[in-house]
Amino acid sequence: MNNYGLDIWSNNNFLIENGQIKLNYKSMPALLSIIEEIRTNDVKGPILLRFPHLIKKQITTLYSYFDKAIRYNNYQGNFHAVFPLKVNQYPHAVKAIAEQGREFGYGLEAGSKAELILAMSQTTHGAPITVNGFKDKEMMTLGFIAAQSGHNITLTIEGLGELETIIEVANECNLKVPNIGIRVRLHSAGTGIWAKSGGMDAKFGLTSTEIIEAITLLRNENMLDNFTMIHFHIGSQMEDIAPLKRALREAGNIYAELKKMGANSLNSINIGGGLAVEYDQHTHSKSRNYSVDEFSSSVVFLIGEIMNAKNVSHPDIYTESGRFIVASHAVLITPVLELFTQDYQERLLNFKVVNPPLLEELKYLSKNLNNKNSIEYLHDALDHMESLLTLFDLGYIDLQDRSNAEILVHSIIKKALYLTNAYSTNEFVQLQVRLQERYLINASIFQSLPDYWGLDQHFPVMPLHHLDVVPLRAASLWDITCDSDGEIGFNPEKPLYLHDVNLDEEDYFLGFFNVGAYQETLGMNHNLFTHPNEYTVNIDDTSYNIINEVESKNILDILDSIGYNKSDILNKLKHDLKISDFITEKEKNDTLAKLETFVEQNGYLRTTN
Amino acid sequence: MNNYGLDIWSNNNFLIENGQIKLNYKSMPALLSIIEEIRTNDVKGPILLRFPHLIKKQITTLYSYFDKAIRYNNYQGNFHAVFPLKVNQYPHAVKAIAEQGREFGYGLEAGSKAELILAMSQTTHGAPITVNGFKDKEMMTLGFIAAQSGHNITLTIEGLGELETIIEVANECNLKVPNIGIRVRLHSAGTGIWAKSGGMDAKFGLTSTEIIEAITLLRNENMLDNFTMIHFHIGSQMEDIAPLKRALREAGNIYAELKKMGANSLNSINIGGGLAVEYDQHTHSKSRNYSVDEFSSSVVFLIGEIMNAKNVSHPDIYTESGRFIVASHAVLITPVLELFTQDYQERLLNFKVVNPPLLEELKYLSKNLNNKNSIEYLHDALDHMESLLTLFDLGYIDLQDRSNAEILVHSIIKKALYLTNAYSTNEFVQLQVRLQERYLINASIFQSLPDYWGLDQHFPVMPLHHLDVVPLRAASLWDITCDSDGEIGFNPEKPLYLHDVNLDEEDYFLGFFNVGAYQETLGMNHNLFTHPNEYTVNIDDTSYNIINEVESKNILDILDSIGYNKSDILNKLKHDLKISDFITEKEKNDTLAKLETFVEQNGYLRTTN
Repeated sequence: MNNYGLDIWSNNNFLIENGQIKLNYKSMPALLSIIEEIRTNDVKGPILLRFPHLIKKQITTLYSYFDKAIRYNNYQGNFHAVFPLKVNQYPHAVKAIAEQGREFGYGLEAGSKAELILAMSQTTHGAPITVNGFKDKEMMTLGFIAAQSGHNITLTIEGLGELETIIEVANECNLKVPNIGIRVRLHSAGTGIWAKSGGMDAKFGLTSTEIIEAITLLRNENMLDNFTMIHFHIGSQMEDIAPLKRALREAGNIYAELKKMGANSLNSINIGGGLAVEYDQHTHSKSRNYSVDEFSSSVVFLIGEIMNAKNVSHPDIYTESGRFIVASHAVLITPVLELFTQDYQERLLNFKVVNPPLLEELKYLSKNLNNKNSIEYLHDALDHMESLLTLFDLGYIDLQDRSNAEILVHSIIKKALYLTNAYSTNEFVQLQVRLQERYLINASIFQSLPDYWGLDQHFPVMPLHHLDVVPLRAASLWDITCDSDGEIGFNPEKPLYLHDVNLDEEDYFLGFFNVGAYQETLGMNHNLFTHPNEYTVNIDDTSYNIINEVESKNILDILDSIGYNKSDILNKLKHDLKISDFITEKEKNDTLAKLETFVEQNGYLRTTN
Repeated sequence: MNNYGLDIWSNNNFLIENGQIKLNYKSMPALLSIIEEIRTNDVKGPILLRFPHLIKKQITTLYSYFDKAIRYNNYQGNFHAVFPLKVNQYPHAVKAIAEQGREFGYGLEAGSKAELILAMSQTTHGAPITVNGFKDKEMMTLGFIAAQSGHNITLTIEGLGELETIIEVANECNLKVPNIGIRVRLHSAGTGIWAKSGGMDAKFGLTSTEIIEAITLLRNENMLDNFTMIHFHIGSQMEDIAPLKRALREAGNIYAELKKMGANSLNSINIGGGLAVEYDQHTHSKSRNYSVDEFSSSVVFLIGEIMNAKNVSHPDIYTESGRFIVASHAVLITPVLELFTQDYQERLLNFKVVNPPLLEELKYLSKNLNNKNSIEYLHDALDHMESLLTLFDLGYIDLQDRSNAEILVHSIIKKALYLTNAYSTNEFVQLQVRLQERYLINASIFQSLPDYWGLDQHFPVMPLHHLDVVPLRAASLWDITCDSDGEIGFNPEKPLYLHDVNLDEEDYFLGFFNVGAYQETLGMNHNLFTHPNEYTVNIDDTSYNIINEVESKNILDILDSIGYNKSDILNKLKHDLKISDFITEKEKNDTLAKLETFVEQNGYLRTTN
């Protein structure tokens, strides 16, 4: 039975039982039950589900492995973690993170002014706030306000200019000075597609020379005591642990050197994020070569070893893993609206008395295809099809001839594939691609899976039900945007097979998993499709609760959000209808009522044939 | 002098005069003057300028070339065009399009319900509306309402199910039936990176067999008279014209065949979009191999020829080019905030009495480097640097040694590059990359140039001033997002050179051109950076007017837009500050006032050092 790689990517968060995918937690509800409950309220489009218990699980995992490594290595520093808001700033994600992380003192990281405001309003008191990225004087001042307001905040400087700004703000006001961190530029490079942030040509970080200048500057300004942290980040979704180990060696030595140079308050190494998430559904290309256990052990052991060698006391360790914490908590469910089948039905064949010779030839091939000649006949059929299409383009055969040829050739391909059983040749794989079924999903890939569009990031996808039936259809997924990029094509290297379903008789839903990191924030409003309806699902021992419903924007609000006046638009539409001819007043009023209903629904599809 | 490829990409829209880039239109204002005027109102972040005259120019060009081709070929059909809203739905873009296109009867295309509502409210009366993409019953009904309200609207069906839905709606209501179009699936494939919409495996379109079924269905329902258009689209940003010519032959024959089959009201071929825009700044890789003249001539000639051969009267021709119409009208201007120089100043060298042997060796190499030994010494220096970094990571040398090594090696590279003059070897190109200057720009690439992130699409970029000075700095551009992907690296194949500027003394602005298509709608809110401030600039014979200011969202509104309650946030921040210690009441009040100002500014950077 096809389990869609659940054992690879799901981290035991889900299981398959009675042909359905269920949450592997407490009362173990089926995703389908949750969706069906939500859809009883006339919800038709894509649905984003959040599961706070999966955030809790990841936070607990992170802290407990570091805890274990610290005890095992007799490490003297503490472990702290912050969640980088850029990974998901949506309220019900952030609130779940703050809530689930409270007992651990889990903090937040901000990379922009808006995120800093968010961090200041959402952080559990006392939990750390770190601030990375380029900052102006206003943002630095906000950092001072945060410190003054009681936050445990560290501003990481990305260049000497930022340090000068901090000094300027400190001299101008009487507010509490925040902790200062320095992003160090490492020569050790990262790996993976986000890896550019490692290495000497990276966007961020101070060189050794600049670090020494910074220390001098801090000392001259009597602010060396505010310098508490060095920070580095070797890149998101780290596939290989080796570069991290090299980076730790380098950063550890920088830390020890700075201590020797008199940075007495320096007490923390922030190792950034990078902890990868498994997105793969197919064993042959797993995304990472290490476990969280190895990750935490390596970090703690290496830093400890360097400090011991240099006789420096162990620093506190900070991490900023975001993807690892939230990717799994969100699942996107999309209804399948329609199957665009590539089955050409032979009942539609409509021959003339006299057909073009090549078409007669195709008839012959189709009729006489057998075990022995199938490959030869297939090649002949493909060749004839090319010729017939050319003849059509040049006006020599008509549309009915072309249609007959299409039907015959598809039937020959299907029979040949069936007879041959040698699916492995490149040609046959290509032909299989050609026979794929197109599943139209009620979602926008640009809005809900932007990393698929931008980075070719694969997300695990599977149906919510029928999991006790072997799926046979090679499937490609079309979204409802009016853009040919809005398609997840059938990829023979990562094949997706789905079920043959009759949508007149039943619904069919696909789930996209591990979409909780980056996909919401990066979501694009292509064709004006916006963030889908979302719900938080709390699961307990006997049941589950669906809370925090946030509806997808309705059509008028979407237009309002890009700057249109919604009443102007509605009035114009009503006016044009009111002055129209040939229908009765009652028909006009009924139509106006319909119009008003439509513009107050969201932009996703509802009723299809 | 470096003209930044203006002759390649600017289509004579801009010119360089007195070291500045100016609009090549009427009073010919310099971009810098416009920006300086806007910035007098305390505007600091990125600025998007719209020039309606450039939309007018493109619409006029499109219509006049088709006009010419129609006259030259004695073509009997008419030419129509619609603007696909997905390319830019922003109000001041759409209003400029509607206004500038009015005299031509230029219409709009919608690909979603929200876009259809927009089209119904913004189309000039009588101008065509076409509707593509997947549609539900609600969207079809909207199409009937539009037709009833007097719009010249055509619903393009993407599958037989959609036709069934239209029939259902027609049977259920008494509203005027809109025109029906059929998207035809062509075997002719497109080219270019957006080309997937051509070919038999494309996302859209009916096969010959399905077309015949559709005609039968329409005839049985007595609705064949509503079928007026066939439509195809071979892909956006078409680089090569050959696939279009093949597609025209194929579609032309389908049209003629349908006429012969009794589709008497069929009168239009819609050739979709695809007309490419030149984005290249470097002669060696132009984006397209045809002119608008060749494009329009080919379309008109080929369709005419096929109809003549089949004795069918000439259809009207529709196009849906969007990129071609609006790409050039918008220019993104970003201030440079800081230069992160890779110059390691020799004054910062700080040797000990006894230095590590490899460092002594570097001192020797630096001192004795000359014409003859430069390449050999350079290789030695790079080798030593690697070793020294390893020694640092293993704890054998200290931070000052490492800094000294950095400074010496960079100085050796610079001298060697200067002495050698053989920049062309691969190694030297790589070293030059290493010496690049980093320009920090006050913008988000994710928000303002999403196609650079997603598709590696290059956009022309150049400074607004100093254009009478040869730029010498190999430049990479960093944006202010906290993401290492937010960088346009120095690319030796498409090198960008910028000026050495002292930002303490003067501003330095970069313009990104041809950003009017797709970039606004696809803009991502990474780090919560939103659509920049925008302005429409109308230019007349003596001066120019800046109108339609739309300010970038302020920080509280950004948070509100993703679902936070802004007064909750502000109250929390105020409360935390109010209960803090160690500062006076006056200091608290001053700080509160500052805080309130900050959250009402947008998220881009303002004051930097």
